[in-house]
Amino acid sequence: MSKNVRIALDAMGGDHGPSVVVAGAALALEQNPDTSFILVGDQTLIDPLLAAHPKLKAACRLVHTDVAVRMDDKPSQALRNGRWKSSMWLAIDAVKKGEADVAVSAGNTGALMAMAKFNLRMLPGIERPAIAAMWPTLKGRCIVLDLGASIGADAEQLVDMAVMGSAMSRVLFHLDRPTVGLLNIGVEEVKGLEAVREASRILREEPLPHIEYVGFIEGDDIGRGKADVVVTEGFAGNIALKTAEGTAHQFADYLKYAISQSIWSKLGYLLARPAFRMLREKMDPRKSNGGVFLGLNGVVIKSHGGTDPEGFAAAIDVGYEMVRDELLGKISVTIRRHAGEPEVARAVSGAAS
Amino acid sequence: MSKNVRIALDAMGGDHGPSVVVAGAALALEQNPDTSFILVGDQTLIDPLLAAHPKLKAACRLVHTDVAVRMDDKPSQALRNGRWKSSMWLAIDAVKKGEADVAVSAGNTGALMAMAKFNLRMLPGIERPAIAAMWPTLKGRCIVLDLGASIGADAEQLVDMAVMGSAMSRVLFHLDRPTVGLLNIGVEEVKGLEAVREASRILREEPLPHIEYVGFIEGDDIGRGKADVVVTEGFAGNIALKTAEGTAHQFADYLKYAISQSIWSKLGYLLARPAFRMLREKMDPRKSNGGVFLGLNGVVIKSHGGTDPEGFAAAIDVGYEMVRDELLGKISVTIRRHAGEPEVARAVSGAAS
Repeated sequence: MSKNVRIALDAMGGDHGPSVVVAGAALALEQNPDTSFILVGDQTLIDPLLAAHPKLKAACRLVHTDVAVRMDDKPSQALRNGRWKSSMWLAIDAVKKGEADVAVSAGNTGALMAMAKFNLRMLPGIERPAIAAMWPTLKGRCIVLDLGASIGADAEQLVDMAVMGSAMSRVLFHLDRPTVGLLNIGVEEVKGLEAVREASRILREEPLPHIEYVGFIEGDDIGRGKADVVVTEGFAGNIALKTAEGTAHQFADYLKYAISQSIWSKLGYLLARPAFRMLREKMDPRKSNGGVFLGLNGVVIKSHGGTDPEGFAAAIDVGYEMVRDELLGKISVTIRRHAGEPEVARAVSGAAS
Repeated sequence: MSKNVRIALDAMGGDHGPSVVVAGAALALEQNPDTSFILVGDQTLIDPLLAAHPKLKAACRLVHTDVAVRMDDKPSQALRNGRWKSSMWLAIDAVKKGEADVAVSAGNTGALMAMAKFNLRMLPGIERPAIAAMWPTLKGRCIVLDLGASIGADAEQLVDMAVMGSAMSRVLFHLDRPTVGLLNIGVEEVKGLEAVREASRILREEPLPHIEYVGFIEGDDIGRGKADVVVTEGFAGNIALKTAEGTAHQFADYLKYAISQSIWSKLGYLLARPAFRMLREKMDPRKSNGGVFLGLNGVVIKSHGGTDPEGFAAAIDVGYEMVRDELLGKISVTIRRHAGEPEVARAVSGAAS
């Protein structure tokens, strides 16, 4: 892997398209000057935007296409209409061809996942992909997966997710042996938890390098920071994520309303403004932007569709760290079913180079 | 049903036992003077507490037992050791025998559900129970179920939950036709949603009286108040509830920390104190205390184990409203598989009387 991190951007993805992508890339470049970009999208829209960012212009190559996946395209539509030619496909394809180390898109999740799976294929030893993201906690941050790539998971798939999540945590948090918990519910002797229980048995009895298994954790333990990595299947994971976002919003709305109710409250707000700024910063969804598609033969990052340049830069930064700290290699050395098989490690490091 | 609402209390349940139960009952009696109580538990502990509440003493009958289900008993242990004789069992049994209209316990959820199912049995036409509770929203409140009685649900069971939740919503919110949404995730064309999709088809194509079906909703729609009733299976429901509780806690903790950081923030806090009080009130978990066990041949309410008298009074109040507004009758008239079978309605109203 060259020292320079090469990032392919789907310039047409997201609610705001190139305006946010270009400005976000410029911010990300300031943060990590050892980055080069491939910008894929409509040249007539991108060129004028690049003119305002000479440094970025010098560090990027533009690949023109006038096909873009729409935010409401179904995955099958996106594949049918956008394969080989859309900005989303071509950004992923740059990773496939070894021209980029990571692809970042704010386009629609289903389409991005479908194209990434179709083009990059799965890592050897992993059955299916998962979406992982950072989650703010009282202690800092943790990683939660799967946030909706698949619904349901058997024990082996949950263990795979523990492996992939721990690799991501080692990259992002620089931990040697992250704590990993399985999301579960507190009711005893309820039927239907067989997969989660069996995954727990495997993680307890067949200890994996780089995983400190801490057992079951409940929904309220995520925000407490009880584990560095929280593993669950995609239905519950997606609902947990969205519910947490909704609750944070609700809290902020109540607070705003309550403060608007009297002149004294407003004055108090002015005095305590740095505190509110600290709160906003801590709960800022832009800081946690960047869902990582794990399990693929390449690194693909999904940014929130509605984010601003700062949020998009955060997603690029997640991709940058994944590449610099060799996420794929870290996953491969921990994959349980293939532990010690050198050809797997070779195949993986080949794909990631 | 007599005008007086008769409430059986497991006086030994919860982290604090009789001290919270007796004080909570006294508060609830002030709220609804047309209530009488059966207090089940250790007379030597309860009698001195009752001495401080003469009005409650006059409105209650004490049933002595020195057997109590422990907070960490497994359901099977609780049934083995506590059947026929524990305070939890005897409170439920008072409902079964028609001596009380509702049982309230702050004891452990698994044990309470096991005993309630074993003793009361299911309502005709309902396969299995669900736990429902109120959830604060930006518009007011909604009802979410199942919060963990079972894991997984087929389409018919989801539709049953829609029926039961709408009945509860009609009782608590006095709505004629509550809006009902099915919790789902936003990713299109993901496999595994068959049960939720099929339930959606049934709710759309076979309209039920008293249900205004609004389609799928996502995790962040709960707090927005997008539906009066949110239906999901128990694993995702429990995780959503706990995650929301955790996020609210997190937000409050950040806020407290941020405000403690400077003298100006602290002064601002003092000025804005009524606003913070309003916020605290709105997010106060005690106000939403009281999980309702739905689908049983009788009304059983689960209070949070660690609540205080005010919270326990709120749980009693939920039970009071369920009885006064005839929850069981409202469920029975909407049960889909038995619509129009008069013997069902008779059996149900007999059980509820």
